[in-house]
Amino acid sequence: MIYQRVALIGLGLIAGSMSLAIRRGGLAGETVGTARSAQTRDTAREIGLCDRIVDTVAEAVAGADLVVLCVPVGAMAAVAAEIGPHLAPGATVTDVGSVKQAVIDAVGPHLPEGVHFVPGHPIAGTEHSGPRAGFPELFDSRWTLLTPLEGGDPEAEAKLRALWEGMGSFVESMDANHHDLVLAVTSHAPHLIAYTMVGVADDLRRVTDSEVIKYSAAGFRDFTRIAASDPTMWRDVFLSNKDATLEILGRFTEELFALQRAIRTGDGEHLHSFFTRTREIRRGIIEAGQDTDAPDFGRRPKSSS
Amino acid sequence: MIYQRVALIGLGLIAGSMSLAIRRGGLAGETVGTARSAQTRDTAREIGLCDRIVDTVAEAVAGADLVVLCVPVGAMAAVAAEIGPHLAPGATVTDVGSVKQAVIDAVGPHLPEGVHFVPGHPIAGTEHSGPRAGFPELFDSRWTLLTPLEGGDPEAEAKLRALWEGMGSFVESMDANHHDLVLAVTSHAPHLIAYTMVGVADDLRRVTDSEVIKYSAAGFRDFTRIAASDPTMWRDVFLSNKDATLEILGRFTEELFALQRAIRTGDGEHLHSFFTRTREIRRGIIEAGQDTDAPDFGRRPKSSS
Repeated sequence: MIYQRVALIGLGLIAGSMSLAIRRGGLAGETVGTARSAQTRDTAREIGLCDRIVDTVAEAVAGADLVVLCVPVGAMAAVAAEIGPHLAPGATVTDVGSVKQAVIDAVGPHLPEGVHFVPGHPIAGTEHSGPRAGFPELFDSRWTLLTPLEGGDPEAEAKLRALWEGMGSFVESMDANHHDLVLAVTSHAPHLIAYTMVGVADDLRRVTDSEVIKYSAAGFRDFTRIAASDPTMWRDVFLSNKDATLEILGRFTEELFALQRAIRTGDGEHLHSFFTRTREIRRGIIEAGQDTDAPDFGRRPKSSS
Repeated sequence: MIYQRVALIGLGLIAGSMSLAIRRGGLAGETVGTARSAQTRDTAREIGLCDRIVDTVAEAVAGADLVVLCVPVGAMAAVAAEIGPHLAPGATVTDVGSVKQAVIDAVGPHLPEGVHFVPGHPIAGTEHSGPRAGFPELFDSRWTLLTPLEGGDPEAEAKLRALWEGMGSFVESMDANHHDLVLAVTSHAPHLIAYTMVGVADDLRRVTDSEVIKYSAAGFRDFTRIAASDPTMWRDVFLSNKDATLEILGRFTEELFALQRAIRTGDGEHLHSFFTRTREIRRGIIEAGQDTDAPDFGRRPKSSS
């Protein structure tokens, strides 16, 4: 047991999975959850997502030695202001936001002296959201990044690291700004690109939606899965990691224009050597255990299983 | 049994899967395969991919009542010129190329009178290639598009349709140019975009390749799977479906710039409503049985299974 009482604020995919993973590992004496919406709280109670579901954040954080903020990045400041006065002395506050510098700026000022703030981000998720979306294996063999503040308490960081490891995750620490740049590459830019492509497909008058759907197995399907992610969460990510996202998109556009020019001028050599290089990264991901080599495009659809 | 003898020219993922699906369904008296590379032919013999593997295309097509061209689009013209003189009278020639108008232009002129040409394209595949990549279920519940020529033989088309249905596929016929536009949306533009994003990630000096690999579960992973597809096949696709691909990429860039501007100006409403709309298409794909609702991002990596 690492913590006596873990308070989960916001009961979506990540908080739900954390609660179930904490239970699986026997990592806390008690988990207490709350959410803004009464419907979410009712669902969480019904499926026994936490040991206790309470109606207010003040109740949730009372006596908790770990408080986890699992709300969209844009809601972090308001929640931090609300819990500030109710935090137990010596408690640790962390979060699971996909952007770190913006969360530090939003949450930091509201936390009282004697409370430890260790921002965090589990690199795991699915395209589903809400209290029913969680499952205890979500973090297994995935990475969680902590972005501890300068002068922060090493013991608080070590305990939080142990919790994530107990939930099955690998853990690494890095600077918040570097985190935001890395995630702009591996997550934020790809999501915006997928959203864009799916939107374009939906817009075309000469190709019907039913054609797009029927023939999606050709590559588009994976874009739609990414573009089915929670809209509020992603709006907040882009608005709060503006600079890094725009920088990566700028590089992306530059490279896309070069490839478009190669297509237009018939430069097959340029295309072939570019496409050969990108195969290497895929191999690295499989070797690192972050995906399987099973041919996913060929997996059996629901109707035939 | 639909055909007496099916000749498969080129022994990659699609030809291999066709041979295995034809065997599964008892759809042909015999399958004969050939490939340009001796190594590919040896592998195909070793694993018994076809009933017979022969060394030349002339031998392969001799006496075949169906000939399937399974080579990259850029190689179609040369192969058609080579088989032309050896085709049996009344035989049907088809192909599996991802682009249709360019294949019609390349292959048509080389086929003698009395041979039926029915171009086709199975919308199925994986990121793997080569003779070992095939599996008999590849086409189950996927769509195959035929783009028959004006004035073509309806009986030849009906037989080919029956073959694809026997291999588990749904079949639809459409005009070649419309096919090329639909595929530019569902396949060609998404592939180029994925290749681009993976190339950009590999290029960035401030983010290491190992970071890109470790944290790929955040969305990037699916791009790398798409960008691991066969470089030669894809070079040929882009060069031979130039106009439609560039048109869709133009629309994509326009939309991407609008979203970038929304990020820069902090227009959360625009982002949120765009991201909400794209969720609908995903639902359609699941309802149409073209993907499962299982949370793919959360699937267990190899190392923990």
